[in-house]
Amino acid sequence: MEIENVLPTEIEKRSFEIITEELEQEGIVLPEIQAPITKRCIHTSADFDYAKNLVYSEHAVEKALEAIRGGASIVTDTQMGRSGINKKRLAQYGGQVYCFMSDEDVAQAAKKNGTTRAVASMKKACELNEKLIFAIGNAPTALIHLYELIKDGRIRPELVIGVPVGFVNVVQSKELILTLEDTPYIVARGRKGGSNIAACICNALIYML
Amino acid sequence: MEIENVLPTEIEKRSFEIITEELEQEGIVLPEIQAPITKRCIHTSADFDYAKNLVYSEHAVEKALEAIRGGASIVTDTQMGRSGINKKRLAQYGGQVYCFMSDEDVAQAAKKNGTTRAVASMKKACELNEKLIFAIGNAPTALIHLYELIKDGRIRPELVIGVPVGFVNVVQSKELILTLEDTPYIVARGRKGGSNIAACICNALIYML
Repeated sequence: MEIENVLPTEIEKRSFEIITEELEQEGIVLPEIQAPITKRCIHTSADFDYAKNLVYSEHAVEKALEAIRGGASIVTDTQMGRSGINKKRLAQYGGQVYCFMSDEDVAQAAKKNGTTRAVASMKKACELNEKLIFAIGNAPTALIHLYELIKDGRIRPELVIGVPVGFVNVVQSKELILTLEDTPYIVARGRKGGSNIAACICNALIYML
Repeated sequence: MEIENVLPTEIEKRSFEIITEELEQEGIVLPEIQAPITKRCIHTSADFDYAKNLVYSEHAVEKALEAIRGGASIVTDTQMGRSGINKKRLAQYGGQVYCFMSDEDVAQAAKKNGTTRAVASMKKACELNEKLIFAIGNAPTALIHLYELIKDGRIRPELVIGVPVGFVNVVQSKELILTLEDTPYIVARGRKGGSNIAACICNALIYML
């Protein structure tokens, strides 16, 4: 297998062409507005399962784009997710990216209440007085607590990106989000996801603007 | 499907138990010294493909552990990978984590030479005068250039973690590393991988010490 001679600037374009071709070969047709997001998840993971496991609530993408355009910030549950989001591009619309997981007060609150730091960091996010998108790529406990905060009317996110990965309560946490009726969401059903997928969905949205 | 009542501190342990059970059900037996690394990759991605696609050169794990114990540093090709590596634990053995991708001189060198920044950042790593582990989770161009630098005798890594993800020259770049005879490697054969997998392999090694 020879090294393909592709210009550095062309690599991403060529990758998306290959993804598009292979989806067509599989007979998979993605809704047009979701396609850039789903394809970027496949691009990030080389895993075509995302063509099937991503669930978008009605008009989730349109609402998310409007929120970002209006200056929404992003709260994520890992420093790795925060690191992967294009903060410079997001800042052009007025938003920033928060991750409270390493904060001293979050560690203390978690210890005191016997929760995960992820839960404590969701509580802390409730204190932010701005439009928020939640991008949860790691901790199902964060997603479960976010669900409770939404149900209690304590927070009203512009979008919930629910893509924690793993084996304990991950599937359950996502199914909870799928029951929400007034909250826009993008959820990777099943076990798969990750901080990389959370960041990639945020970036796909930002790049659509 | 009910939320399982698992203590925060027990979630990772329970996850690894589930992974172990499911590997057994599939009849997959991992070599003992590789198991903590392969299982952590599955834990990070919920993707059991890693049980089959990870290729370890002979004694790669033993050599890597010795290198980290001896103070080796890690060079990675994304800030996200750098962010995911447990730098505090690595520092206990004397190593640190480098990522040169955002450096101004790297951007200039890449522009001047018409390469990717990933290639320029590998060149910069050659100037480091210490034991190095390379953890490449994103850029096949980085891995290809690293291969060339090794073949030219300009660098002699303690370990190459070759897990870029994607569709253009990714498979090829990994096959090149698999031809190396005197360089320890851990490679995810095929298209899959990522910054998360690169970080996770580093952490698995650190946690084995």
